[in-house]
Amino acid sequence: MAGIVRLIEKKREGAELTRAEIERAVRGYNHGSVPDYQMAALLMAVCWRGLSRSETVHLTRALVESGERWELPPELHPALDKHSTGGVGDKATLMLAPMVAAAGGRMLKMSGRGLAHTGGTIDKLESIPGFRAALTRDEALAQLRRVGCVVMSQSEGLVSAEKKLYALRDATGTVPQRGLIVSSILSKKIAAGATHIVIDVKHGGGAFFATEQEARAFAAELIAVAAEFGPQVAAPLSAMDEPLGRAVGNALEVQEVWELLRARDTDSEVTALCARLGGKLLALAGLAQSEDAGAERLREVVRSGAAEAKFGEFIAAQGGDLGAFAEEMERLGERTQRVVVKAQADGTVSRVDALAVGKLCHRLGAGRTRKEDEVNPWVGVVLWVKRGDAVRRGDALAEAYAPAEWDEAQLEWAASEMLGAVAL
Amino acid sequence: MAGIVRLIEKKREGAELTRAEIERAVRGYNHGSVPDYQMAALLMAVCWRGLSRSETVHLTRALVESGERWELPPELHPALDKHSTGGVGDKATLMLAPMVAAAGGRMLKMSGRGLAHTGGTIDKLESIPGFRAALTRDEALAQLRRVGCVVMSQSEGLVSAEKKLYALRDATGTVPQRGLIVSSILSKKIAAGATHIVIDVKHGGGAFFATEQEARAFAAELIAVAAEFGPQVAAPLSAMDEPLGRAVGNALEVQEVWELLRARDTDSEVTALCARLGGKLLALAGLAQSEDAGAERLREVVRSGAAEAKFGEFIAAQGGDLGAFAEEMERLGERTQRVVVKAQADGTVSRVDALAVGKLCHRLGAGRTRKEDEVNPWVGVVLWVKRGDAVRRGDALAEAYAPAEWDEAQLEWAASEMLGAVAL
Repeated sequence: MAGIVRLIEKKREGAELTRAEIERAVRGYNHGSVPDYQMAALLMAVCWRGLSRSETVHLTRALVESGERWELPPELHPALDKHSTGGVGDKATLMLAPMVAAAGGRMLKMSGRGLAHTGGTIDKLESIPGFRAALTRDEALAQLRRVGCVVMSQSEGLVSAEKKLYALRDATGTVPQRGLIVSSILSKKIAAGATHIVIDVKHGGGAFFATEQEARAFAAELIAVAAEFGPQVAAPLSAMDEPLGRAVGNALEVQEVWELLRARDTDSEVTALCARLGGKLLALAGLAQSEDAGAERLREVVRSGAAEAKFGEFIAAQGGDLGAFAEEMERLGERTQRVVVKAQADGTVSRVDALAVGKLCHRLGAGRTRKEDEVNPWVGVVLWVKRGDAVRRGDALAEAYAPAEWDEAQLEWAASEMLGAVAL
Repeated sequence: MAGIVRLIEKKREGAELTRAEIERAVRGYNHGSVPDYQMAALLMAVCWRGLSRSETVHLTRALVESGERWELPPELHPALDKHSTGGVGDKATLMLAPMVAAAGGRMLKMSGRGLAHTGGTIDKLESIPGFRAALTRDEALAQLRRVGCVVMSQSEGLVSAEKKLYALRDATGTVPQRGLIVSSILSKKIAAGATHIVIDVKHGGGAFFATEQEARAFAAELIAVAAEFGPQVAAPLSAMDEPLGRAVGNALEVQEVWELLRARDTDSEVTALCARLGGKLLALAGLAQSEDAGAERLREVVRSGAAEAKFGEFIAAQGGDLGAFAEEMERLGERTQRVVVKAQADGTVSRVDALAVGKLCHRLGAGRTRKEDEVNPWVGVVLWVKRGDAVRRGDALAEAYAPAEWDEAQLEWAASEMLGAVAL
């Protein structure tokens, strides 16, 4: 006990903790000898004083060592992975995983459920009837071998301390600290056996990082810390003032991805982002000559229909029934109330506020406030316009799918939030 | 839960909390709806961002309201109290309470047990056979009426949240923050019904505040916050690079006070401090025309023997047997091993390091490391010299009373620590 207090005091005074000290704190916390309240004080002291590069490396290592580690067999190398720092309407994983697999790569992606105004990839996939996100290691590796991609929920056995720590950070206002975020992301990827990782670092209105400068510092830290462990990381930045694509919600985002793949659309914002991220990933792993060549290969699998076929194969491999999903989506009108907002004047869309749209979707029931909350798969927002679009008075700007039980006043509130989010 | 997280985040970002927010946090913590880990994060955020004057007032009020409140009957007014920010060898309460009572004031003082290198007044008094520190309200008020002074342990029913909070601060490295300390001290005094309080704010080597500037800011905050509640506070500063007086330990400090009173010594460092603090207190409460007149009255009760008599009366009222104490002290040689260090050259004492002496006494067993530790009443250090004293080679500088079970190497270590603490 006294030892941990001195360690908290050391960080409180701004000193750098040693590898042994960080290991002692993380192991003690994982095993229960360091109680939540001491770890909470240490976490806030870390928010105050920051973590040096070395401290972040030590923390990442301690988190990796707190659980099992998946070593993927060499025939499954390079093991590709992808992460995004979160964004409103960010459905890139849903499209990128089958695109990469169709292009001959192998992507094993563990993903989370959503909290607050950013949705979770697993929540989105679970809107497909029958989809199973909880796979065993054997199931995941068999699917990776056979299909080339897996998107599953975080395996229970990995990074045990990280899970405990994240839940504590969430409950103690200690989430937004660079070193804590870097070690949280990388420890999971390293424990899952990834060899090459692309991390989409978003900045702007609805993103975690408000400015490009913060995002750049974060990306540099990710790359430098990962280099201490082996996996190669590319961490491109992307501006996100607007939601990604047009749909925000769970089923609505799955539908958008599926429609883009069926339409073999290589120009959409979502496809373009996936080609860019995936191109970097293929080049990083030596599966393409260059980022541009990788991106072109990915556009080609979309154009040829190979990505659409792989999407169906991947969903089916995890038990998902896209036919049943399509039927559910046809019954959207029974489960939700549709609210459309229209332009009140002629003009050009100057901005779609991602944060406002994300918060509206959260209120509609697409996200969680607490971990134990259920999400509503059917609600959400679809944007009919994006920044730069010219509109005429009376044109539809956006539509919300609100819960069937909402009353008139709630629907009016949703409409006014949408109008506020789309600035002419 | 979410409400408290937002409150932690607000403080983390450096914003000022409202009265309602502080009350919500303290009440929730007191009743158990806010868990230790959330309060620990909030406390560290407070160490980081500080507490404004208003926040400190709100916190003090919330702590007072978390338990019972003793309203003393008007015939026991003015209700005098005293606090010290702690110091090595600080036995002022033991002498000041009977001095003030002998001079016609009434002092009800609740006191703590010691932690780390500063001793607790209750630990010191409990070295007197039979002494009872845990009094009920009725017992305390009856003794205050009859004898004029009471020194008791903190009553269980008062400031319930403060006790819980202090234990948490102690375990999470969040003790040294001005607003937290001010509210901790004042809430206890206000809840116990004090109307006039003198607070001895120490600064220097062995003190809580390293610099006079910090001590001055702290004193100003104490006075300003108290003014919001009613009690009048005087908060004089005193430099403390040396231990106060000559003895450091539990029984050794009681013996020093008793000997000074029996010797009717009005010039000793301890008596002078008590006359100064008590003079301010009597003047503040309108019981003396001026601070100087108050101090002179207190010296007079020492000179006349009234203070010595009151000391005996007060100890006896709480069950203490000074005769038995004197017998115990004669057997000190059976319970301890005495180590004397001598000057190795002629010279003048330039400094006696209070912190070093305090830490040595702690190691000898006079203090606690954890709350559940027992203290050894008999061990400690007696200084034969103080700063400015001329010494000749071979003169005794100090003696330690070490535990009977210590071996030769430990005794040598104690001797070298003493030699290091007394600089020629």
